[in-house]
Amino acid sequence: LQVVHGRLPCRVKFLVEGEEEIGSVHFGRYVEAHRDILRADACIWEFGQRDIKERLVITLGIKGICYLDLELVATSRDLHSSLGAIVDGAATKMAWALASLKDAAAGRVLVEGFYDKVRQPSPREMEATRILPFDEEEVKQSVGVKQFIGGVTGLDAQLRLLYQPTCTVCGFESGYTGQGSKTVLPRRARAKVDFRLVPDQDPEEIKQLVQRHFEQQGFDVKMTLLGGERAYRTSLDDPFVALVSGASREATGREITIHPTSAGTGPMYDVGHTLGVPIVGVGAGFWGGRAHAPNESMRLADFEETIFVMARIIERFAGLP
Amino acid sequence: LQVVHGRLPCRVKFLVEGEEEIGSVHFGRYVEAHRDILRADACIWEFGQRDIKERLVITLGIKGICYLDLELVATSRDLHSSLGAIVDGAATKMAWALASLKDAAAGRVLVEGFYDKVRQPSPREMEATRILPFDEEEVKQSVGVKQFIGGVTGLDAQLRLLYQPTCTVCGFESGYTGQGSKTVLPRRARAKVDFRLVPDQDPEEIKQLVQRHFEQQGFDVKMTLLGGERAYRTSLDDPFVALVSGASREATGREITIHPTSAGTGPMYDVGHTLGVPIVGVGAGFWGGRAHAPNESMRLADFEETIFVMARIIERFAGLP
Repeated sequence: LQVVHGRLPCRVKFLVEGEEEIGSVHFGRYVEAHRDILRADACIWEFGQRDIKERLVITLGIKGICYLDLELVATSRDLHSSLGAIVDGAATKMAWALASLKDAAAGRVLVEGFYDKVRQPSPREMEATRILPFDEEEVKQSVGVKQFIGGVTGLDAQLRLLYQPTCTVCGFESGYTGQGSKTVLPRRARAKVDFRLVPDQDPEEIKQLVQRHFEQQGFDVKMTLLGGERAYRTSLDDPFVALVSGASREATGREITIHPTSAGTGPMYDVGHTLGVPIVGVGAGFWGGRAHAPNESMRLADFEETIFVMARIIERFAGLP
Repeated sequence: LQVVHGRLPCRVKFLVEGEEEIGSVHFGRYVEAHRDILRADACIWEFGQRDIKERLVITLGIKGICYLDLELVATSRDLHSSLGAIVDGAATKMAWALASLKDAAAGRVLVEGFYDKVRQPSPREMEATRILPFDEEEVKQSVGVKQFIGGVTGLDAQLRLLYQPTCTVCGFESGYTGQGSKTVLPRRARAKVDFRLVPDQDPEEIKQLVQRHFEQQGFDVKMTLLGGERAYRTSLDDPFVALVSGASREATGREITIHPTSAGTGPMYDVGHTLGVPIVGVGAGFWGGRAHAPNESMRLADFEETIFVMARIIERFAGLP
């Protein structure tokens, strides 16, 4: 841009954080504390890819999260399992507690009040979702399942993935797990559960609802909130969305795809809500990038192309032709 | 005996096995193969103790066991937990599977047919159980629970402990269980479950019932039988019981207590059923022996006393006064 225009046509601020993978635990406070320095008219979120049909994906939102560490202590010590006739161990109780969180048939979270603040997709978001590419059979094959939760298909599956909160047991551990057998009634069980949240759910409030749920069910579960983020979505009607879409189309010479939100999580709320800016995610990834997996990669051509996309966004934002 | 009588007054055979703690996996076949050598009129099982009131305990039976190793694979690989909206992970499914085995309120096993062959205690066994010492509050305090499963108390708790089969999750493991958070939808979950069985339940059959239960509930659980033993009880009416009780009373000069069965497990069935002999458990332990725990111990005086008990049993068995 400096070569072409002799100068940056508008002010550009970079905000880089390194804690996203551990839940951006300090990011919200950082943005809050530096609100004046970070003030802006719009925000480009480096997050995006080319989909399987090589269309650039623009993403307008992201889910939140409530990540809980659970501990259940049932007895004062490990016991000989013959006592199982009159005493329940921690592993059994934790299985009941975890099972009580979600309905096995429909996948609906059974915690009272969990869905109270869930914002339903707007008609515009529904429409934008309807035209998204979604190769259902390919996803099923890739993850190795015969059907999705509750047998949902097509648009319903897409809507669940983007607009519904989740409840996932990420791990559990109790008692004897080595080779062979040991007849023990374990004293303690631990589990980790994440809830992916949608607007306008509050992770702290979700934690309290889960706590109350366990109490009502009679489970004495201690919990720690290991990560809490709120979801965020920029409106499809925001002029910045049209600007970025147009600039991307121009810079790549290809059609683009707009995702009203992503199924993933990130600290978008901390920026969008605190600074009051529209946010559009666009980035240099591609469909085969193996995010978070061994041999994660991006293609150099995509990286170069994204430089032009960013430059064109900045030009358009500055009112240049 | 040889000093007093100049000879052993009857033939005595010793049968010693070293695999009890791993489920006596070869014992049944061994007894079967050596049936002729082992043939006997009665059997003393070295298993017993002095209770908290220092009464010698005689035990006539023992529970069986069905120990299962469970594996549930939900997806072809670990997934990003954002997919939790449309795909259930192995940890969630295993929690449902384990929770489905037993009713949380009453502790009743929900596997269809599980109780079909359960032999109810006879009126004589009920009566013998009614007079057993059982310090309910002490047990609760020792294990650290406020109440027993389903709120049972007194004789009901005793009856459950001795005559009802159990279902205990001895251990489970899935996904991420380390420090902090990792948002993962685990591919695989493992668990170990033991069922303590009563006469006339068959461990192989129980395994099949559990397998069918999981299939009916829609859980694809692979299972391995790590230990299977049948329960056994000698009748309270067997003359050998009166003989051992009387001999023990004489040798110790104290009252004795008869337990119609124990809550623990051992390969008594292999001997009692295959050889067709009455079995009475009597031994040198004491109430504070910390079986299976650090600093397991017995008292030398109890050891010496038990020698006299055994000698008196042999004398009485041989018809000596």
